[in-house]
Amino acid sequence: MSNAQNHLLNDLLERRRPGYSLEAPFYLSHEVFQADVQRIFGQHWIFVAVEPQIPEAGDYLTVDVGKNSIIILRDDDNEVQAFHNVCRHRGSRLCASHRGSVGNLVCPYHQWTYDTKGSLIHVEHMGADFDKRQHGLKKVHVRSLEGLIFICLADEPPADFEQMAAQLTPYMAPHRLKDCKVAAQAEIIEKGNWKLVMENNRECYHCVGNHPELTLSLYEYGFGYQPSPANAEGMARFRDILAKSHERWESMGLPSREIEVLDTCVTGFRTQRLPLDRAGQSQTMNAEVASKKLLGQITDPAVGGLSFWTQPNSWHHFMSDHVVSFSVLPIGPDQTLVRTTWCVHKDAVEGVDYDVANLTKVWNATNDQDRRLVEESQVGVASGAYTPGPYSPYTEALVEKFCNWYVGRMRALTPTTA
Amino acid sequence: MSNAQNHLLNDLLERRRPGYSLEAPFYLSHEVFQADVQRIFGQHWIFVAVEPQIPEAGDYLTVDVGKNSIIILRDDDNEVQAFHNVCRHRGSRLCASHRGSVGNLVCPYHQWTYDTKGSLIHVEHMGADFDKRQHGLKKVHVRSLEGLIFICLADEPPADFEQMAAQLTPYMAPHRLKDCKVAAQAEIIEKGNWKLVMENNRECYHCVGNHPELTLSLYEYGFGYQPSPANAEGMARFRDILAKSHERWESMGLPSREIEVLDTCVTGFRTQRLPLDRAGQSQTMNAEVASKKLLGQITDPAVGGLSFWTQPNSWHHFMSDHVVSFSVLPIGPDQTLVRTTWCVHKDAVEGVDYDVANLTKVWNATNDQDRRLVEESQVGVASGAYTPGPYSPYTEALVEKFCNWYVGRMRALTPTTA
Amino acid sequence: MSNAQNHLLNDLLERRRPGYSLEAPFYLSHEVFQADVQRIFGQHWIFVAVEPQIPEAGDYLTVDVGKNSIIILRDDDNEVQAFHNVCRHRGSRLCASHRGSVGNLVCPYHQWTYDTKGSLIHVEHMGADFDKRQHGLKKVHVRSLEGLIFICLADEPPADFEQMAAQLTPYMAPHRLKDCKVAAQAEIIEKGNWKLVMENNRECYHCVGNHPELTLSLYEYGFGYQPSPANAEGMARFRDILAKSHERWESMGLPSREIEVLDTCVTGFRTQRLPLDRAGQSQTMNAEVASKKLLGQITDPAVGGLSFWTQPNSWHHFMSDHVVSFSVLPIGPDQTLVRTTWCVHKDAVEGVDYDVANLTKVWNATNDQDRRLVEESQVGVASGAYTPGPYSPYTEALVEKFCNWYVGRMRALTPTTA
Repeated sequence: MSNAQNHLLNDLLERRRPGYSLEAPFYLSHEVFQADVQRIFGQHWIFVAVEPQIPEAGDYLTVDVGKNSIIILRDDDNEVQAFHNVCRHRGSRLCASHRGSVGNLVCPYHQWTYDTKGSLIHVEHMGADFDKRQHGLKKVHVRSLEGLIFICLADEPPADFEQMAAQLTPYMAPHRLKDCKVAAQAEIIEKGNWKLVMENNRECYHCVGNHPELTLSLYEYGFGYQPSPANAEGMARFRDILAKSHERWESMGLPSREIEVLDTCVTGFRTQRLPLDRAGQSQTMNAEVASKKLLGQITDPAVGGLSFWTQPNSWHHFMSDHVVSFSVLPIGPDQTLVRTTWCVHKDAVEGVDYDVANLTKVWNATNDQDRRLVEESQVGVASGAYTPGPYSPYTEALVEKFCNWYVGRMRALTPTTA
Repeated sequence: MSNAQNHLLNDLLERRRPGYSLEAPFYLSHEVFQADVQRIFGQHWIFVAVEPQIPEAGDYLTVDVGKNSIIILRDDDNEVQAFHNVCRHRGSRLCASHRGSVGNLVCPYHQWTYDTKGSLIHVEHMGADFDKRQHGLKKVHVRSLEGLIFICLADEPPADFEQMAAQLTPYMAPHRLKDCKVAAQAEIIEKGNWKLVMENNRECYHCVGNHPELTLSLYEYGFGYQPSPANAEGMARFRDILAKSHERWESMGLPSREIEVLDTCVTGFRTQRLPLDRAGQSQTMNAEVASKKLLGQITDPAVGGLSFWTQPNSWHHFMSDHVVSFSVLPIGPDQTLVRTTWCVHKDAVEGVDYDVANLTKVWNATNDQDRRLVEESQVGVASGAYTPGPYSPYTEALVEKFCNWYVGRMRALTPTTA
Repeated sequence: MSNAQNHLLNDLLERRRPGYSLEAPFYLSHEVFQADVQRIFGQHWIFVAVEPQIPEAGDYLTVDVGKNSIIILRDDDNEVQAFHNVCRHRGSRLCASHRGSVGNLVCPYHQWTYDTKGSLIHVEHMGADFDKRQHGLKKVHVRSLEGLIFICLADEPPADFEQMAAQLTPYMAPHRLKDCKVAAQAEIIEKGNWKLVMENNRECYHCVGNHPELTLSLYEYGFGYQPSPANAEGMARFRDILAKSHERWESMGLPSREIEVLDTCVTGFRTQRLPLDRAGQSQTMNAEVASKKLLGQITDPAVGGLSFWTQPNSWHHFMSDHVVSFSVLPIGPDQTLVRTTWCVHKDAVEGVDYDVANLTKVWNATNDQDRRLVEESQVGVASGAYTPGPYSPYTEALVEKFCNWYVGRMRALTPTTA
């Protein structure tokens, strides 16, 4: 980016008023969007897929991060690899499909052929002096956290991923995501900036007025609520349920307490096992499990939902019967892809153990409601009349932390300008 | 806008050659478009709606002016209000619908609630220290001229609106637009710059070759024609009809003479009561009234058409039986919304007193013909080969006045650059 | 273009690495695209149509080159004329249709009327002082090379067109394109930069893996292949066939030897009469003629294909029974029109002498395959991971010559910057 663009960005970052929503250019400007793609999505660990999407050697999927297409592939040694989806000859995209299964990766243009480790193994007409070893696929850093696949496009990825992995593994391991299969996947394109999508995810102030399906099972209080005179009674009741639930789950070997480093780490995240209302089992219309085949070693269906939120682009709910994961990927300043993946036990049988419509109903409805809210926000902040407004100190603390993290990371990665 | 952009604009404005069409960047450039939205549509009175669109308290409509969405609402005291359609919390659009009826304005996101005067009256989770009085909706200046609703987005709107209102009221009052109802409305998007739409409206040189329906009732001579040797005969005949008609209408208490300050006032306009051909009553296919219920105190159907043209964005024809109004709103450098509204007496009964197809036929056909002309002009001026061409001194004087007004206002509002 | 834009372009041009594909901005940048339209398509001879498209006086077609629409018209003296499709009054496009037949050119807006030589011959309301001679249509340079119509938008077109015409005429004359009719035409829009379309055309390295229909009749070796140890046998066999074919065709009065000045002339081109495989007659599914009526004086159907490639935007194959021509026109950085025209003898009768599906099958299939390859290349080079890769020295020499020509011409036409 040019010096002038960085200067503009530094001005915006400097002006940021804590406790208030961001200024309009953060949601509208092409320059800011370009910086978001380069610095936020280009320099951090981003969540892109789950291992059950590529169960067998040779299985691959592709994800688009900005203009970059990345191949996520299970190699012949069953390791997860990530490559740029670009042939080293004249730059053709290698895989046009979003998913598939291959022996080798063969470019459709001139049949340059790469193995599942990314090495160029066959090429015609290039002559004896041509060095295939110099023309392997460009690799992308990739890590699996108990089956959640993160990539980092930077040369030097943030080191604190290991710390997050060490803390999270005991929480997730009992759910055995790697032994799951994908039961359903949904992609929606929201006509709004990716940060509006994330801010929407980071508070439940809007839940009661907008999410009738979700609030059947979800307590809004678990989403960063702070006690106030107005919510004292509900908050106290929730804290009581939470304490009792945690005691029970911890005794079952399920770590449950909150870990929250959303704006204090480069790889910011939050996790907590949260009680569910009614039947207390799953995020469904009756709060009962959607799949009869419980995950991993879990035998009690009522273990609430282990929620896991990451900066900058994901959230996940691990329940006794299924895991639902959300990946947010920016397309343009006012367009964002939200990909939702539901996983159940790999031995669960559709129509017998679970029904896809029942499994997906709550989040398909909720996603669509959130899409509308995000799109109305995008229209509103584009108005010349928009000015940043105050966050609720009692219900929007995690939105503030998202903004803190974003602004902090951008400040750290934007060159100083005079 | 940046100094460089203003510099570019000042160069263009300075180069403008009187008597010739504008240079291409006025129709194509994103920078000029941005200046048009800010300085022309942001600093002048623009016509957006008619009162019959919001007959009852709580009725509202929304209009988009550039990226600004404005709510036009009849408040609980039956006054017309205008607000920015943006919640003061996190900027969501309040009303997604183009029209509706409300008790209060409730933001769909977190239910912040404003009354019909724009005051914030209810909010949750914001705590005891939160000052609702600081968070009312942002107001927009609004005035009704005998039922025609104009807004101004500027902090200080042009003062000469009052002068226009004082002059126009006696012309319009007999038609009693406020006692009308909306019989039909049409929106078309023309793929052309808003100035090409306006220039097209400001001459009838193109009528004979393009508007077979309109020219059944309309005399082209009434649209700014100047006498020439070639048109001497037709012009003389028209002037004779005009003089006799004015004498008759003035004697009936209907002011008719031309007032024309198109390029000599900030709020430029022109009005004149003009004779119609054939039956002489209305702009229909047989020039007879389309609605049997005559407007206001009018008892003679043959009172021609009171035409009213405003800078920068409207024209209107008040006839004995109906009023047709046109509002032009820029969407992009090459896209413009034209909204046409037909009003009849509020007691007229559809199917008995009037037929919508008959009422709207002439202008729906004419609008579509003009759309094509505007779109072909947009394509043509985008060619590298386009150079400004000469206006006809006999038929395009009002186009010239539109350009004069536009260039004059832009000069006045663009900062001087070195 | 601004000094900064030229500076950027000069940097890119200077960095160009011979033997490697171009850097990404050449395919992506709006500034480079603007320079391409101005300097490549605005300053060179470009192929736009064939004479059989406008057989009679008054017949016209329009072509879009960037934002410029050009009318190609056969005037009343049967000469081919080219005009900017822009009225000299207020700039409206004159002809909205892509083809038609006219007595005069009449602007739809205000009926300004031009004759087939482009002179303004009738206008109303402009007064006695108006000089029609100053307001004729703006002319565009146009030349027909044995029926292939080239235009040049520059004031001073490259002079070496005459040299090309002198060399090519004996090759083409026997096919008598002017005595043909258009049997079919296809337009496809490829979502890729025009240079990727051209580069794809300039090698047959990709043919064997992608073009099953085309390679039934076409020898890949004729498309710039260089001998290598790996292809020695096939190459020797082809050279033998080529030598024998040339001997036979030259004895029939058909010039056949290669002329290749692709990157050594301003009006770069290559031609050669090439043998066809199997029946050896035509680019069809059985390599037999698609039209029974042979062209011009040709009596032997097996005269191979006279291929003719031009910089920057065309290629053609003249066979005994038909001529197929391709015109490439840029629409945007990532969008290109490819127009394919098939001509047969004007006396050939559809359904009797030829069948359109049979005539067009090979190239319709091939075009669609190439479209996909170009589009995948466009996606790939847009990735941040793309870096220029090496051309095959044995199969991609003509791609290299296209890039040489392009870079050389851009260097010659881009102002030096500090």
